[in-house]
Amino acid sequence: MATVRALAIPARGAAVESSTVERRAPRPDDVVVDIRFAGICHSDIHQANEDWGPVNFPLVPGHEITGVVAAVGEAVTRFAVGDRVGVGCFVNSCGACEPCLAGQEQYCVAHPVATYNGTDHDGAPTYGGYSQQIVVRESFVLRIPDALPLDAAAPLLCAGITTYSPLRHWKVGPGSKVAVVGLGGLGHMGVQLAHALGAEVTVLSQSLAKEKDGLRLGADRYRATSDPATFAELRGSLDFILNTVSASLDLDAYLSLLRLDGTMCNVGGPGDPQHHFAYSLIQTRRNLAGSNVGGIRETQEMLDFCAEHAIVAEIELIAAGDVNTAYERVLASDVRYRFVIDIATLV
Amino acid sequence: MATVRALAIPARGAAVESSTVERRAPRPDDVVVDIRFAGICHSDIHQANEDWGPVNFPLVPGHEITGVVAAVGEAVTRFAVGDRVGVGCFVNSCGACEPCLAGQEQYCVAHPVATYNGTDHDGAPTYGGYSQQIVVRESFVLRIPDALPLDAAAPLLCAGITTYSPLRHWKVGPGSKVAVVGLGGLGHMGVQLAHALGAEVTVLSQSLAKEKDGLRLGADRYRATSDPATFAELRGSLDFILNTVSASLDLDAYLSLLRLDGTMCNVGGPGDPQHHFAYSLIQTRRNLAGSNVGGIRETQEMLDFCAEHAIVAEIELIAAGDVNTAYERVLASDVRYRFVIDIATLV
Repeated sequence: MATVRALAIPARGAAVESSTVERRAPRPDDVVVDIRFAGICHSDIHQANEDWGPVNFPLVPGHEITGVVAAVGEAVTRFAVGDRVGVGCFVNSCGACEPCLAGQEQYCVAHPVATYNGTDHDGAPTYGGYSQQIVVRESFVLRIPDALPLDAAAPLLCAGITTYSPLRHWKVGPGSKVAVVGLGGLGHMGVQLAHALGAEVTVLSQSLAKEKDGLRLGADRYRATSDPATFAELRGSLDFILNTVSASLDLDAYLSLLRLDGTMCNVGGPGDPQHHFAYSLIQTRRNLAGSNVGGIRETQEMLDFCAEHAIVAEIELIAAGDVNTAYERVLASDVRYRFVIDIATLV
Repeated sequence: MATVRALAIPARGAAVESSTVERRAPRPDDVVVDIRFAGICHSDIHQANEDWGPVNFPLVPGHEITGVVAAVGEAVTRFAVGDRVGVGCFVNSCGACEPCLAGQEQYCVAHPVATYNGTDHDGAPTYGGYSQQIVVRESFVLRIPDALPLDAAAPLLCAGITTYSPLRHWKVGPGSKVAVVGLGGLGHMGVQLAHALGAEVTVLSQSLAKEKDGLRLGADRYRATSDPATFAELRGSLDFILNTVSASLDLDAYLSLLRLDGTMCNVGGPGDPQHHFAYSLIQTRRNLAGSNVGGIRETQEMLDFCAEHAIVAEIELIAAGDVNTAYERVLASDVRYRFVIDIATLV
């Protein structure tokens, strides 16, 4: 066991504070990672507030983790001390169910073990990336290509794969007409990735406030959803809509933008019931779908793809002491486009 | 022009009454069909009550039509007098849009011309199959294989293709685990077709009242949705759910029955807003979809498939004078499984 410094939330709604956490001694298949950077995901805040159900406090958030290998167990073959690595949203899965065997551990029938606020197979609670070190099974560790800086690569482990996986699953590529709804942490990755995959990309945002950013990130068009003309212009024109917004939308209005056999995929997770009219789906054989992060193999593929296309998150690097302020700014949508904690400042 | 006898509804909510309707003189590409049988579809009643919007009365319903060719225009090449033919839910489309060119006329961007309560490209209102004759462009006429009786084949033109098309589109076949929700006019076709396609078929019905029928039609299992054990038993086990029910369901409960990448497709069209939680789709990358009848080419494929597999509708043949009673029984779900009007009794 090792005691390492961490940023913890002691109880529901409490502020983040400096604390410590125990990390297990490495097992034969474990990789010990010295964490360098941890991204702040909106879901960290949802969990801290128990928006998604009870939390086992203290909570140490963070599932956008990059760092360097500090030690490896004796059975580890793919990683060595000094390697640049990443850890994403889950750190274990059953390994035996159909999704696990297909490399889709995120859909493990027995549920993957979340990187934080999870319970590992040994019964131990999991603590996330807002800490100096983490110990993870080799098969859940990703390799960060040399071309990617560790700070701006951290958000790829959640925001990157969450948008990459559905774009790939629904075969977005050259000729695809794609809309990305919302230009936040997820959306700004979705725009870059869809553009790099060869699609024609439209950003649908409440206003045109971030239009310059959207076009710079690779969007071909940027339209305000507050303007009814947007829905008239794009009616029946899109193959795929990637909805990154966690708030409830007028689904029928968005579905009307899809062509025959088009899909609207939600990766944001609003907690309220969603409404649509059956006719919106029947009329042009449309699909309403959802997608949850991505498997380990696909996450590595995404990291390699990002290295090849020079894609990273746009980040604001902050010190450990600034996390509470950062949370307030995330809630106010005042971040372009991801906060990343410099773990070196965690002392 | 020819004046032929028909069953018409003169105004919203009025009873069906014997009347006449004008049919156009055949154009070069027209087929004149002496109608022998017309199925009663629940949508006939919805239209008569203006449930789906304003209707241009008098309404002559009927889009499940079989008969015999009485005459053909000079440019008709595929049909001759005496041929056994059918007409389904639409009788024209633009022919130039992407769906039309792909043989998916039902999704014509300019909207297909409905067989009744439609307006044809010449501006004339369309009148349906509750009549002695209909005049239809050759390219919207289907061939009824000799192996199929004209009376029990009539419902294939709507109930048959409406269930066949999504089963094919979502690639249901050997190894597929399929549930058909509702054992009515659509559902009893869906069970037969999914079984013939090689799927393992479960019927999900409110009660077990029609269990014997369901098993006889080819279902492997029949389960009551009023029993919570049904949802526990089938959780995460299905590849495809064909929802034929027009009433609103607890979508989250049904979605929970789907495996990774499973699809729930609605072919019934409830008018109320539908509700689901985003998590039901995100958690196992599920799809909620809809499908609307099928294209002409696929309808012919379905008819040939039914002939090959000896599939027809189970019908109750009625006289023209019994249509009002039949409507009442449809509304009471008291039909196994489709009323078909014997047009010879229309005098």
